Amino acid sequence: MLRTFLLAGSAMLGGALHAADEGHRGWTLEDQLTVPDVRTLAIADDGKAAVYVVRVADRESDKTVAILRHVDLASGSTRELLRAAWIEDLQRIPGTADWSARIDKGDGVQLYRIAAGGMVAPIVVHPATAVYGDTEGAAYLGYGHAPLPTGVRSYSWSPDGRWLWYVVLDAEPYRQTVRYDADVASERAQRRSPGRATASIFLRDSKGRDRLLAKRPHSDISTFFGRSFVNWDKDEVQYDVMEVDAAGKQRPVAMAASLATGVSRVVEDKTKRGYWRLTGPLGGRLSSGGFGMTRDLVETLPDGRTRNYGRFPFAVGDGRAVGGFVSADGKRAIAGYRTVKNPRFGLIVIERGGARMIGGGTSLNNCDFTATLDLGVCVAQSQILPPAVVSLDVASGKTKRIASVAPGHENIASLRTEPKMWVNRNGTEATGYIVWPRGYAKGKRYPAIVITHGTDADERFANQENQWEYPAQLFAERGYVVLLINVPFSTQSADFKAIYDTWVNETKDRPPREVQNRIWLNDTASFEDAVSELIGAGVVDPKRVGIAGYSRGSQSVNVTMTQSQMFRAASSGDGGYLEPAFYQSLAGSYDTVYGGPPTDPAALPNYLRMTPSLRGQEACGAMLMQMANPYPASIDLYTALRSAQVPAQISLYPGEDAASDETHIFHIPSNRVKAMQENIAWFDYWLLGKRDPASPFAGRYAEWDKMSKAAPRQCDGRKSAAED
Amino acid sequence: MLRTFLLAGSAMLGGALHAADEGHRGWTLEDQLTVPDVRTLAIADDGKAAVYVVRVADRESDKTVAILRHVDLASGSTRELLRAAWIEDLQRIPGTADWSARIDKGDGVQLYRIAAGGMVAPIVVHPATAVYGDTEGAAYLGYGHAPLPTGVRSYSWSPDGRWLWYVVLDAEPYRQTVRYDADVASERAQRRSPGRATASIFLRDSKGRDRLLAKRPHSDISTFFGRSFVNWDKDEVQYDVMEVDAAGKQRPVAMAASLATGVSRVVEDKTKRGYWRLTGPLGGRLSSGGFGMTRDLVETLPDGRTRNYGRFPFAVGDGRAVGGFVSADGKRAIAGYRTVKNPRFGLIVIERGGARMIGGGTSLNNCDFTATLDLGVCVAQSQILPPAVVSLDVASGKTKRIASVAPGHENIASLRTEPKMWVNRNGTEATGYIVWPRGYAKGKRYPAIVITHGTDADERFANQENQWEYPAQLFAERGYVVLLINVPFSTQSADFKAIYDTWVNETKDRPPREVQNRIWLNDTASFEDAVSELIGAGVVDPKRVGIAGYSRGSQSVNVTMTQSQMFRAASSGDGGYLEPAFYQSLAGSYDTVYGGPPTDPAALPNYLRMTPSLRGQEACGAMLMQMANPYPASIDLYTALRSAQVPAQISLYPGEDAASDETHIFHIPSNRVKAMQENIAWFDYWLLGKRDPASPFAGRYAEWDKMSKAAPRQCDGRKSAAED
Repeated sequence: MLRTFLLAGSAMLGGALHAADEGHRGWTLEDQLTVPDVRTLAIADDGKAAVYVVRVADRESDKTVAILRHVDLASGSTRELLRAAWIEDLQRIPGTADWSARIDKGDGVQLYRIAAGGMVAPIVVHPATAVYGDTEGAAYLGYGHAPLPTGVRSYSWSPDGRWLWYVVLDAEPYRQTVRYDADVASERAQRRSPGRATASIFLRDSKGRDRLLAKRPHSDISTFFGRSFVNWDKDEVQYDVMEVDAAGKQRPVAMAASLATGVSRVVEDKTKRGYWRLTGPLGGRLSSGGFGMTRDLVETLPDGRTRNYGRFPFAVGDGRAVGGFVSADGKRAIAGYRTVKNPRFGLIVIERGGARMIGGGTSLNNCDFTATLDLGVCVAQSQILPPAVVSLDVASGKTKRIASVAPGHENIASLRTEPKMWVNRNGTEATGYIVWPRGYAKGKRYPAIVITHGTDADERFANQENQWEYPAQLFAERGYVVLLINVPFSTQSADFKAIYDTWVNETKDRPPREVQNRIWLNDTASFEDAVSELIGAGVVDPKRVGIAGYSRGSQSVNVTMTQSQMFRAASSGDGGYLEPAFYQSLAGSYDTVYGGPPTDPAALPNYLRMTPSLRGQEACGAMLMQMANPYPASIDLYTALRSAQVPAQISLYPGEDAASDETHIFHIPSNRVKAMQENIAWFDYWLLGKRDPASPFAGRYAEWDKMSKAAPRQCDGRKSAAED
Repeated sequence: MLRTFLLAGSAMLGGALHAADEGHRGWTLEDQLTVPDVRTLAIADDGKAAVYVVRVADRESDKTVAILRHVDLASGSTRELLRAAWIEDLQRIPGTADWSARIDKGDGVQLYRIAAGGMVAPIVVHPATAVYGDTEGAAYLGYGHAPLPTGVRSYSWSPDGRWLWYVVLDAEPYRQTVRYDADVASERAQRRSPGRATASIFLRDSKGRDRLLAKRPHSDISTFFGRSFVNWDKDEVQYDVMEVDAAGKQRPVAMAASLATGVSRVVEDKTKRGYWRLTGPLGGRLSSGGFGMTRDLVETLPDGRTRNYGRFPFAVGDGRAVGGFVSADGKRAIAGYRTVKNPRFGLIVIERGGARMIGGGTSLNNCDFTATLDLGVCVAQSQILPPAVVSLDVASGKTKRIASVAPGHENIASLRTEPKMWVNRNGTEATGYIVWPRGYAKGKRYPAIVITHGTDADERFANQENQWEYPAQLFAERGYVVLLINVPFSTQSADFKAIYDTWVNETKDRPPREVQNRIWLNDTASFEDAVSELIGAGVVDPKRVGIAGYSRGSQSVNVTMTQSQMFRAASSGDGGYLEPAFYQSLAGSYDTVYGGPPTDPAALPNYLRMTPSLRGQEACGAMLMQMANPYPASIDLYTALRSAQVPAQISLYPGEDAASDETHIFHIPSNRVKAMQENIAWFDYWLLGKRDPASPFAGRYAEWDKMSKAAPRQCDGRKSAAED
């Protein structure tokens, strides 16, 4: 099964990071689909090679597949070692030249050893009956992958490689029992009947003998989501689990198991607990403090004292950044950060009491280091730079390009992509990018599309988490000005952060109307003002502006389309938050946003003010709703828009079979292609009046014509103005 | 597979219909579970025998099974011919001594021939892939049975037995396609992902050659629910189908297929259309006119003229009554009726311009007649009489008991069961029964339970459609006065009927508050006043009164428990209508009841006035909610009650497997037993303060103790008083 090929030798591509700028062809739909998603990466013990995994759409099988590649760091020579349904959690096996990974080779996700030569051999194979995915009977939902039967959920090697801590799952057989109360109420928010599973935590010694440390219930999300923090001490292994009390309240608990006896105890010493720790060189937890464009890099010691390493234009602790590394001697720590302006992911080295940024100007989202933290390997990318493997000399901080991760994308001519920070009429800052249309000519007005997804517009390459199935680059190829706009970042001021904290923590610290004004209605103001600026500059045609966003972005899109008259067309993806139908499932959150349930006469005016489905009469633009799930909340918005004769279409994308669904992040390549084509057809039709008889959605034009004729109003370009 | 046994010979049981009164033992849980449900019955061509089917719980297999029995009408000797998962639609095969039926012998529902001797042989066996049931991928939901793969959906023999019209189903394979708009919105109301199927209508000639008449789409509910009206004319067979236009509007269309060519045409002649026709001897449609305790029996001719056969204390056309029969010579018609007072099912014979009631004082819900309509066979039953096969001489109108259908229930000592007609404070009449506790002693006050399910309290024997899993007879054995109360019948006056018509037809003829007042709030008044009467008479202890109802009954129960202070405990079964969560799925209906959606400020007061979940603060009694499905609406009511600290429990009863659910009418015997035991435990605990350590629900007492202690108020016995 070992397939060898040269992906991209350094000899061929040279060392220039911006090689793509000299490319010579435009983006295609295939390019949009096949942007590789780097999932995991590990350097060899001797620093001479690395392995990494990309997930990429495979049109032939219509699956998103995982590819394990081996790259020689001297030559850049890259070999494909394995292609499988799923490969994750690459780790070096300490004391060997081998790696390990969790791989689904057809019998569920199991733990395998990967020899440097490419041989893949089982370490733990457990009958995989517990499924993660949007499918009937799944133990837990999936986020962006096909239903995934899972035997081994997580694992950790001891630093000497002699011990292996690992978690295996067992689906509980269906029990025909009566369920009560909370076990019933939890199904309100679920489309399909859930399954249940138990997790078993094992410790394996160097002779291969397994010892059961704990059996964990389905409710322990630390264990079931592979998020247990595992720490190896001299005589014991520490790991954390999530306990849930009778009232449903979760509480993380640190456990420690003796290596000698396998007996576990609860770790009472708070300084030893490690949940989500980003460790500094003093053994404390690294974090970023303060607000605005620069932040204090602080290490909080177990005893509560803090050490401030200075003020930097970034924040550590972002889930998308590289995690933390500490050298074997404990003297050097490396942590990933995300910059505040023009969001980019980088690394900070903390040693000898000081901190310095390393790695250059591209984003480094995946890195691994040798045990001494002298040498690293990362994947570098940016808005225009396709991902590439780079080596990183920690002492000098310099990177060196080794090999491309996306050779197929190397010869695309980069689109002009301009980082921006917009300040809206309320004085709020939002970051993002203008992707200029290919061959932009000054003096001509262009159509424009805003694409938004919370905070994911940053220096990653055509990232699916940000763009979803809105093909930003293709839109730019087709003559649209594309604005990738983040919602205003919460840490720009203490006051703004307090608003977000009120929402996230579901408190009453700020009144509902202020929460509405400062979050969603302010998002709308940001989008409007960003577009206005380009209209004012003569770049954008005010009559041809659209907006798209999924998930958090769909909230902004839905609110914008029912508050603003600037956007003639929209595409809102797989969301329904803010709609009354979700109230009962998200009561705490809705109470913060609206002040109570919609049936509370005191709260109802707050709904009428901002709930998209209650404002169908205010909408003018045409709304496409692409769904992975038939959420009642989204159906309600569709129904409300159609009742008000606003052009709207809801499109449900199918799952692998009748008993499973597409996932929130689409994972079925044919769905991804269709969803992108549908977005192109939708915006071309509603913004440009263009029809493509070859589009797979050409059959919908007649329906759109009917809706267009019946529409009660045209967008007049007015900006939103929130009622008091 | 032919098992022969003597169920009950006429020699043994004699001819007395009320033999059970002389029985000698009390009701058991097993008795409640095993009340047989007679589904279909057919007399032999020569009138000497009959076959019938009962569905009955089988505890060993934990399935509800169908049993086909053959009864000799001279001796009463009864043989079991077949036991299968499903047997339905018994028909004589004209010109033979045999019968046919749709039977699931393990490969789905198919059409079989049943010889008088018991031999069962296939007529049409079609690969059965389309499933009816509450299960993943089912073509249509099931009402009260296990997931039922179905090959043959319906059939009809020509009067000469030479032709067979039949419908077979084919599930459509899962197609991974994008769905739009109405196809997505329809899933809002569905728990599981639906499948789709097509129906094929065939005509088979006497040589066994099949001819396809039509392929029908999934939307044709006439065909898919086996409700096509099939009529055989000299040269053609007429049948109706349901056409659905682009806007979703349904329209029945009569088709006629030439027997010679198989070519179908649409029947344009209105007088030839037969949907739901209850035929009279003049070839017209029989119906009952007028309001109050007696009704005009009217035949409406195809040309619109009417013939009035007089005024009777019954109405024809009730779906639970026997359908219509017309003799081969067309001169005699027999139709089933339901009496208005003490609702009972009987037969009316119309011939020579007159009409006469036949069949005696018991309920006849299943009858069949020889071709001349001279001789019939029926199943007779009453509140206290277990079902028995009777023969019926049409000329004299006399019945003769032949054999018991429920020998196991024959020696239960009948409970005193008193038909009642209550008139409430609003002057509205409601029918029903008082089931007196075994050994009732005057002067002592008893606890009481009201059981309600719309209009199903009538002279049927412990009927599951009425009682659901509320074991009325066991409650009476345990010392409760049980009131089986129908909601006030809609036809008692033109004015009252207009209210019901407003609701059923979803019009605005009457304002929402009047609809609320006259339907649900008036139901509550009926229950309260019926109980009051017994309190006033010294029979019932006002501090120990409960109420139970499922489906339509759950509406009444939920409203009553949030309006009245008379009921200390309730059990509400598998319903959620009236709750805001169902608004989007039932907008027309809710608009009639509430005047708009709950988010309409003008309608909201109407919700606050009567929506159970918005009145948790008004509730005092403990509410058990037994569910076959985790309906969001029901979960919302549970959550609201618990938020108000009102004692409440929601119990979800399981399906056969992870991918299917229990049905609205429970079909899994172990669920039925548990649900009855749970109701007993619940009312015993909350009304009597009794605990049974042997109850399978004893483990819940601790939870109930906690809720009881935390409850903010006790029921003070006050009656409801609707706000204006």
